[in-house]
Amino acid sequence: MLNLASDTEAGWVQRVEQRLDHLLLDHAHCEKKAASTAINLIFRYQMRPEMVRPLSELAREELQHFELMLDVLEARGIPFDILQPSPYAGELMACVRKGEPQRLMDTLLVLSLIEARSCERMKRLSEELSDPELRALYKDLLASEARHHHGYVDLCTGYYGREATRARLKELAAEEARILDGAPRDQVRMHT
Amino acid sequence: MLNLASDTEAGWVQRVEQRLDHLLLDHAHCEKKAASTAINLIFRYQMRPEMVRPLSELAREELQHFELMLDVLEARGIPFDILQPSPYAGELMACVRKGEPQRLMDTLLVLSLIEARSCERMKRLSEELSDPELRALYKDLLASEARHHHGYVDLCTGYYGREATRARLKELAAEEARILDGAPRDQVRMHT
Repeated sequence: MLNLASDTEAGWVQRVEQRLDHLLLDHAHCEKKAASTAINLIFRYQMRPEMVRPLSELAREELQHFELMLDVLEARGIPFDILQPSPYAGELMACVRKGEPQRLMDTLLVLSLIEARSCERMKRLSEELSDPELRALYKDLLASEARHHHGYVDLCTGYYGREATRARLKELAAEEARILDGAPRDQVRMHT
Repeated sequence: MLNLASDTEAGWVQRVEQRLDHLLLDHAHCEKKAASTAINLIFRYQMRPEMVRPLSELAREELQHFELMLDVLEARGIPFDILQPSPYAGELMACVRKGEPQRLMDTLLVLSLIEARSCERMKRLSEELSDPELRALYKDLLASEARHHHGYVDLCTGYYGREATRARLKELAAEEARILDGAPRDQVRMHT
């Protein structure tokens, strides 16, 4: 349903529990980055009115989750510091082809896959984390990630049709699984 | 109360009524730009936690107003097109001194003045526009602009103290009045 080509490895949650502060901090940064990416897309594609409103709504929701994560950090005494991001999103964005219309298609699908992976991981966190408060937090959040995944795929389908979207999504999902598989295991991040 | 050094000229509302479509479209773009600017500040100053949350809340509100303006445009059959911005904001941002801490101080105060001018103009629109729906719209919106003005000034005061903030705000307000006075009168924009 999430169009991912791999499952997160067994033991991932136990691994990230070693540096839960980094997971939560990285999650806050991911929400901020997701909002900023959506707004940048509004600027780049403002001649496409059908994208502008859903992206604005999505950016607002990401900001709301960013503020929620600031609350979580504050409640746990974790300062909102700079944290080097995982190379995952950058490497995935490097798969976006240059030149339109491929650039828009790939951008929407890469963003859809990042949301899908977040959803898959939040589901695991909601089931396996030892902290019941955090299990509940991730249970609440994962539905939005799934919605964002489908939102990006639907935008792509509207522009490029179902068949072309499915085919490219499959290719990019294979890249996503490959990139995630190669991500450094020594960092604790949402996408390692 | 808004710390502006000039009043909008008599006859401004009658002038913008000649191209109400451009005023509304420009207003939509201004809300989008304001959201994007706030998010960029979160990225640039993320080591200052006391700025991060209010800027995120502000960005969400700007996006909500952006979506509201998309509704207004749609209801009036005005396409959401690209529109060349007024030189106003760019010229005002050029007054920001390079190098910290001056850069942050000036950025906060310049943004506070843009919000203040929007508020002053929306008040005029709420009183003088011939269209009662738009008068009501601007009456609703102007309070947020005033709140954003004070939010930026308060952030600045928190960092640099009341006296230094007041002094620099006065200087920048004089620049703002000068720039607005020189803005091209042949365009219809929120800040011309």
